[in-house]
Amino acid sequence: MSEQARKRLGRPPASANQRGRILETAALVFARSGFEQSNITDISEQMGISKGGIYHYFKSKQEVYDEIIVQTLRGLHAYVDAALADVHDPADRFVVFMIKHAEYFERNYWSFIAMLSGFRSISSPATQEEAIALRERHEHMLRRIIADGVAQRRFRAVDPSVAGRAALSLLNWMARWFRPDGPQSAAEIAREYADLLFVGLRHPDAPE
Amino acid sequence: MSEQARKRLGRPPASANQRGRILETAALVFARSGFEQSNITDISEQMGISKGGIYHYFKSKQEVYDEIIVQTLRGLHAYVDAALADVHDPADRFVVFMIKHAEYFERNYWSFIAMLSGFRSISSPATQEEAIALRERHEHMLRRIIADGVAQRRFRAVDPSVAGRAALSLLNWMARWFRPDGPQSAAEIAREYADLLFVGLRHPDAPE
Repeated sequence: MSEQARKRLGRPPASANQRGRILETAALVFARSGFEQSNITDISEQMGISKGGIYHYFKSKQEVYDEIIVQTLRGLHAYVDAALADVHDPADRFVVFMIKHAEYFERNYWSFIAMLSGFRSISSPATQEEAIALRERHEHMLRRIIADGVAQRRFRAVDPSVAGRAALSLLNWMARWFRPDGPQSAAEIAREYADLLFVGLRHPDAPE
Repeated sequence: MSEQARKRLGRPPASANQRGRILETAALVFARSGFEQSNITDISEQMGISKGGIYHYFKSKQEVYDEIIVQTLRGLHAYVDAALADVHDPADRFVVFMIKHAEYFERNYWSFIAMLSGFRSISSPATQEEAIALRERHEHMLRRIIADGVAQRRFRAVDPSVAGRAALSLLNWMARWFRPDGPQSAAEIAREYADLLFVGLRHPDAPE
């Protein structure tokens, strides 16, 4: 890839972010072959570098995986949070949350897949704790949006835990069927889901 | 377990259904340890029988896994289909579909988990085809319920594919967080989800 193409894609030059490239490649390898079936050699071969080039940054395959999980969760929350900065109506915030979560998923497809499938097998207790805290912070932001919507009579009196879990289930299950080369973007699908959750299935003439 | 207890639980005596017991135990082993990390010895030890007692019914670990997937999908569809026999209103059928799907999941917890995680790695092309056809039949039943609901003005003019995928996403993602010893049954959670999807989040006074 030319330096110009890199800039267009908003990516830093490779040398400045070798660590990030390792994580990206490892996520692809883990997601495709499974963590157990992959090793550092697979990652280095995929990148065309030596194994030493990876051990310079990471002690083990597990450390690479742990870092993918934490970095993806941190990136996801920051991405959604930034998009919400200027959105104030809770119903709008709910839609933006879902769209931006899906957009981050599509842009970081392999890391996201690896994060979801590796979440429960993080090796270090400190990393596990950090990952749980990051996930909790993200889910809490969504529950807060729903609670505000209820308080401001934009939403009916739903349980923010149930509604928040529903929204995240729709988004996360996309990891199982969504393909980046498919006809719709993840953000478009998320918008359809947000509309469905907001308005519901019921026909306006149908009884409650 | 006594013969009496078995009858109370509606299970056939062990001898009559050794094949079924193998599948049940294997599902537990695969779901807990992962397919790659498990072998026939783990299953036989968990059952307290010899490896030969498993090879009598199945040629390989992969054949066991394939059979879990197909049997679970077949059982799921039959269970939901039977419950729908006397339900005619599309909105009621939608709720019953979700509740019964969740109930089957909880009653066949380990097989369901194994089915969802193994679906894409079925070895035999014929079994793969069968599994896809079974899943498609189940999803088609749900889309049909939604299309009928739209036609009968019980649901607004939603896209049955989007709404059906949403309902199944909510149900299937439960495999990731639901615990059978938790405070709510899977059926109760499915009812909450069905209500949420039917009525939506929007406050009745809020603009569309």
